[in-house]
Amino acid sequence: MKLSPLFWPIELKGKTIYILDETLLPHKVKYIKAKDYKQAVRAIKDMKTRAVGQVILVFYIFLLVIRKNKNKKDIKPILFKLAEIINAARPTLSFKYLTDMVLGWMVSGAPLEESILGFLETLKNKRIQQARAMSELLADGDSILTHCNISGQMPAIGEFARQQKKHISFFATETRPYLQGSRLTAWELQKQGFDVTLISDNMVAQIMHEKKINKVIVGADHLAQNGDIANKVGTYQIAILAKHFGIPFYVLCPPASRAKTGKDITIEIRPQVELLEYQGIKLAPKGVKGYYPAFDVTPNNLITEHIYLDIER
Amino acid sequence: MKLSPLFWPIELKGKTIYILDETLLPHKVKYIKAKDYKQAVRAIKDMKTRAVGQVILVFYIFLLVIRKNKNKKDIKPILFKLAEIINAARPTLSFKYLTDMVLGWMVSGAPLEESILGFLETLKNKRIQQARAMSELLADGDSILTHCNISGQMPAIGEFARQQKKHISFFATETRPYLQGSRLTAWELQKQGFDVTLISDNMVAQIMHEKKINKVIVGADHLAQNGDIANKVGTYQIAILAKHFGIPFYVLCPPASRAKTGKDITIEIRPQVELLEYQGIKLAPKGVKGYYPAFDVTPNNLITEHIYLDIER
Repeated sequence: MKLSPLFWPIELKGKTIYILDETLLPHKVKYIKAKDYKQAVRAIKDMKTRAVGQVILVFYIFLLVIRKNKNKKDIKPILFKLAEIINAARPTLSFKYLTDMVLGWMVSGAPLEESILGFLETLKNKRIQQARAMSELLADGDSILTHCNISGQMPAIGEFARQQKKHISFFATETRPYLQGSRLTAWELQKQGFDVTLISDNMVAQIMHEKKINKVIVGADHLAQNGDIANKVGTYQIAILAKHFGIPFYVLCPPASRAKTGKDITIEIRPQVELLEYQGIKLAPKGVKGYYPAFDVTPNNLITEHIYLDIER
Repeated sequence: MKLSPLFWPIELKGKTIYILDETLLPHKVKYIKAKDYKQAVRAIKDMKTRAVGQVILVFYIFLLVIRKNKNKKDIKPILFKLAEIINAARPTLSFKYLTDMVLGWMVSGAPLEESILGFLETLKNKRIQQARAMSELLADGDSILTHCNISGQMPAIGEFARQQKKHISFFATETRPYLQGSRLTAWELQKQGFDVTLISDNMVAQIMHEKKINKVIVGADHLAQNGDIANKVGTYQIAILAKHFGIPFYVLCPPASRAKTGKDITIEIRPQVELLEYQGIKLAPKGVKGYYPAFDVTPNNLITEHIYLDIER
């Protein structure tokens, strides 16, 4: 099946990691070449990749360092140190559960390269299965609203729907302030020949009222044990609106975290300049304050169905 | 009382109309000088002024033409023609009810200059009364969310609250795609020393959830006879969210039109390029579609209280 470049935005070839620079999309499709862990960690810090790309990259950084240190007698101290460096790459995002997995395999004596490659292969397959499971809930003629970007999952859902002879179309919110909807979702859907229409984030009620969409599908950055999810800010209000209009609201979930409910999830507050400027253009008068909570929590009771990623930790 | 430049953005001095160029705000405060009706109608076509500015400008264009034709024996044919030109200035906006007022005074033999000046004076006073009526519904410590721009009414409400010794603060949605919230509302509130914070349009549920605001005040472009209103797109979903969170939702209304309900109000669909580009920067990949309904209708049952503009037509 054809996959979006965003579905698997990182590749490791020999001793070079290729990182899709998502900050240049949609105008340029360019891969950053990282030849050592420092360049790769820099790409995380600079947010050149995001979401699933960051997860894949963490594992590829380990692989790269392992390959580069084949002749070392004891690689353990190197990988412990590396895990620390990766964990510190972004203050508000925890990579610890990923680096802990690798350190766990190492300590238990599992074959490291095989464990990492096996995990990534499983991740890819499970994500494809997740897209297929979602596609099976769709009906011919559905028009789907989505928000932000689910790392290539929307086109994958679309491809499965095609295989099932269902004609579906998409609406994407532009997703201010970073415009992932315009720059990533609309781009990857259009690239694969799907019918996609952009709206601004304040047009959701209007297109629901006009019955231009009949299903909502979003991703999640975080799944709590009670089914609450955290996702890009704006998800919560779309869920409330979907309930108001009686429109089903589906969530493609990552594995559940240790958070019991959404209340246990900390919302990252990002720098206001990201809201007040766009590509150097000042959008607001000097000195005006902005408030930018990057995520919000959608409670379980607004979610019609969770589509789980059936993967072991 | 100190009024925002947006409260009365048009002035007529002698035979020159000064039009606040709202497209340059907030970075430049510049008035366009219109010395004849053609320049003034051009400013309407180019959307240099909007909302109440357009209403005021229509009357000042008549005044200008009347003053320039003092010596004409019969000004009637000139004004009939002028009304036609003004009515055609924007295809989707009807100025006919305004030009009909002037033609009505003319046909009935009322003193024209006095009638126009009297009407504008009344309009100004009634708008100030409307802001005061709204301010009286506020409590000390209120934090108000607003959307788009209500032509200087928000700072006026703030000034009245100050007189009443109530401390209030504001949140403004940026209001994509034209950013009236950032460029106009935040600007005019900050200019008068009010505490104002910008959010993007997808953060409304989150700040309601965080209890950062406890009242919503918006304007309306259109009031139907049953109390439904049409306003800048995004208003409808804020009203649904306000109901969900139990937050009062107030609307500053214009005089009611002949529309019986919101269903009789036509929603203007604007060019998609206004959504897909900002100041020449392409926000979306080439060829992706956009959909831009400029307004939406908020049904009466979502409105806690209408603040009427008590003015005779």
